Amino acid sequence: MRFVDMIEKKAGGQRLSSAEIAEMVTGYVAGEIPDYQMSAMLMAILQRGMTAEETAELTLSMMHSGDVVDLSDLPGVKLDKHSTGGVGDTTTLVVAPLVAACGGTVAKMSGRGLGHTGGTLDKLESIPGCCVEQSMESFRRIVRENGVAVIGQTGNLVPADKKIYALRDVTATVRSVPLIASSVMSKKLASGSDAIVLDVKTGTGAFMETPEEARALAERMVDIGALVGRRVAAVITDMNQPLGMAVGNALEVREAVQLLSGQIAPDDPLYEVCMLLGSQMLRMGGLAADDADARNRLRAAIDSGAGLEKLQRMVAMMGGESAYLTPERIDELCAVRRHIDVPAGEDGCVVSMQAERIGTAAQMLGAGRATKEDVIDPAVGLVMRVRCGDTVRRGDPLCTLYVNDETRVEEAKAMLLGAIRIGAHGGAATPMVYGVVESK
Amino acid sequence: MRFVDMIEKKAGGQRLSSAEIAEMVTGYVAGEIPDYQMSAMLMAILQRGMTAEETAELTLSMMHSGDVVDLSDLPGVKLDKHSTGGVGDTTTLVVAPLVAACGGTVAKMSGRGLGHTGGTLDKLESIPGCCVEQSMESFRRIVRENGVAVIGQTGNLVPADKKIYALRDVTATVRSVPLIASSVMSKKLASGSDAIVLDVKTGTGAFMETPEEARALAERMVDIGALVGRRVAAVITDMNQPLGMAVGNALEVREAVQLLSGQIAPDDPLYEVCMLLGSQMLRMGGLAADDADARNRLRAAIDSGAGLEKLQRMVAMMGGESAYLTPERIDELCAVRRHIDVPAGEDGCVVSMQAERIGTAAQMLGAGRATKEDVIDPAVGLVMRVRCGDTVRRGDPLCTLYVNDETRVEEAKAMLLGAIRIGAHGGAATPMVYGVVESK
Repeated sequence: MRFVDMIEKKAGGQRLSSAEIAEMVTGYVAGEIPDYQMSAMLMAILQRGMTAEETAELTLSMMHSGDVVDLSDLPGVKLDKHSTGGVGDTTTLVVAPLVAACGGTVAKMSGRGLGHTGGTLDKLESIPGCCVEQSMESFRRIVRENGVAVIGQTGNLVPADKKIYALRDVTATVRSVPLIASSVMSKKLASGSDAIVLDVKTGTGAFMETPEEARALAERMVDIGALVGRRVAAVITDMNQPLGMAVGNALEVREAVQLLSGQIAPDDPLYEVCMLLGSQMLRMGGLAADDADARNRLRAAIDSGAGLEKLQRMVAMMGGESAYLTPERIDELCAVRRHIDVPAGEDGCVVSMQAERIGTAAQMLGAGRATKEDVIDPAVGLVMRVRCGDTVRRGDPLCTLYVNDETRVEEAKAMLLGAIRIGAHGGAATPMVYGVVESK
Repeated sequence: MRFVDMIEKKAGGQRLSSAEIAEMVTGYVAGEIPDYQMSAMLMAILQRGMTAEETAELTLSMMHSGDVVDLSDLPGVKLDKHSTGGVGDTTTLVVAPLVAACGGTVAKMSGRGLGHTGGTLDKLESIPGCCVEQSMESFRRIVRENGVAVIGQTGNLVPADKKIYALRDVTATVRSVPLIASSVMSKKLASGSDAIVLDVKTGTGAFMETPEEARALAERMVDIGALVGRRVAAVITDMNQPLGMAVGNALEVREAVQLLSGQIAPDDPLYEVCMLLGSQMLRMGGLAADDADARNRLRAAIDSGAGLEKLQRMVAMMGGESAYLTPERIDELCAVRRHIDVPAGEDGCVVSMQAERIGTAAQMLGAGRATKEDVIDPAVGLVMRVRCGDTVRRGDPLCTLYVNDETRVEEAKAMLLGAIRIGAHGGAATPMVYGVVESK
């Protein structure tokens, strides 16, 4: 079939066959289908959607466009987690070690941050010496000996996604459920885990702005798992304010160390989301009977310090100076020239926050990248001092900036003040967790 | 505004501003907007549509991308007609001379045929010596002295349409009302006429398969005229069977000469559509009081032979051997090696025809082009022997093929037999004219 006829089919709302989808992916990766045809197809998919079967087929075709990691020689059920990208979301650095401490095997390839969202690799690299570029052999060894490894993508994984994503980025075809789902899931499936827990963010700091959109994406990704025979579950969590209080690389590592050291209370949103994700992973790995059992085990791994030890050992095996990863020494990684408070301009209640703009403010200070070439300052960023619903008085600090380069401080301050709305009355409370989607 | 943000706007169903549309057209023509972004935009437009105002803006931006012909020095209201492309549609060669014979000024730039549809230029070139590539000076002279000229496009008219159409063709974005409307109207407006009558075809041989789609396109084009201050009217006519009996270049010229010589009865569909178009043109040119008056004048120009004389003189002024354009000599242009009848395979009634496939059969015999490079044989084609609703007996000729090269005769025959459905009972009669759309 000529590719123009395939575009016509999708433009008219018809479904594509498995053979057609495979032909599209291989043809595009091989350069036989030009960008101008692929972008028309992507826009037709954005507008007309894809069925669960088409999305699964697209995911598999993309997955098989490059290397597929085989972890079957490693012991136990290989567990992975993935977040669709948030602000102040350091759950990986908490959950992965905790699950390993509870007997799980966590083999995770992670990504870097871009725009307002942080990336786990950048956070790990804020620890001196820690090298996220590990060989496949080293990755296997760390997982085998320590139960957990989080590294950068290795090998030629899912080249189709790289090429398609680059085109989506410049053709306004990013916000499509089947295209996001196939992009995420092709990479997760290619990296070889048996069971995957997805954290789909919703709110002002997320791709999926409403819980309904987030649920649609979560369901589609869980469906893909079911259709291709992998265990996949998804939680839908709030991103209307930063998840943790810290936004920045070493600052988020510090918050993870604090949580793993028992210094963060269970009613904290970051703590709750970590428990939720960890509980899902333990149950999918057959390591806990139910949610209560799983949470008891996770809490025990905090109380005993076993979780923190797993993180320290992993970092040490990746060449990092793990001695920093203690409540006593972690502050050294967060040392900056100046701490600058951003005060509230009026009395009132924190009605809402725009997490995306808070992430962008941290990026302006050097904590994130606007383009792939930007260099990150690991120590800088910001720490929130309030949460939605808090009462503040004029002059109270809303957050504290951690600054080395002061060039864009005023810009970042203005961005933050615009992002945090203070009103006479509190806003409607948004839940922290909107739901869990599991395979039927 | 970045073009990707404009695509996002349209993809989300928002309207584009005049400035954005102008920026898009100039940016694309200048090569600043790459094909892969433009094709995503075109698909978004196909899916989300454009308002009448956006379409008018697009039309004007395209029109001004190249030369704009100024005919204001020519006398009278300059009249033009345009058909959205049909099979066996030789109306231009009838209506243009008739309107000129009634005192109208017809300055028309026409196109070539591609695929199953014929083109007026190819028909004119079937007359020995007739050169459709005329200079602007020659075009003006013929119009001034003869009242009518039909030539090929001259100068650099609407380069934006050439570039956009080429991209639409390979990205399945042809069938979009605003894109078709802006493509047709930008060319019509750039070629300088004051009043334009559009013939929007509907049926199996047309872009717009249903009368509703055809009406939507007709209304949009008439709206563009109103928004930019030109007189535009549209008729919606049937293309569920070839309009005339002849499909082929010299064969269609012969049918035009026959009509202009009074040899075709007024109840013939081609005759009726010519009257309808001619009547609209005369009234828009202020040359007839009403439809009855216009038709009387047109009939008089047939009866007196004044219409045929206009055609003969125009062809002569374009270097053509106009002596062929008489009922006595016109057959010489249609001389071929073999005439082959295609017989009915069964007794019954002609229930329906697929005009597109009949056009394609003629193309297989050499009457049309599959690609722009194909060379046309002016004499070949086919003449229908039946119309929808006719009763036939097995063996009766459904049509007669005019053949020089027999290579694809069997293929053409099979195409025709598949295109003409014979059943026990007649199909539902479809009207010849579905309506007239005039500016409010």
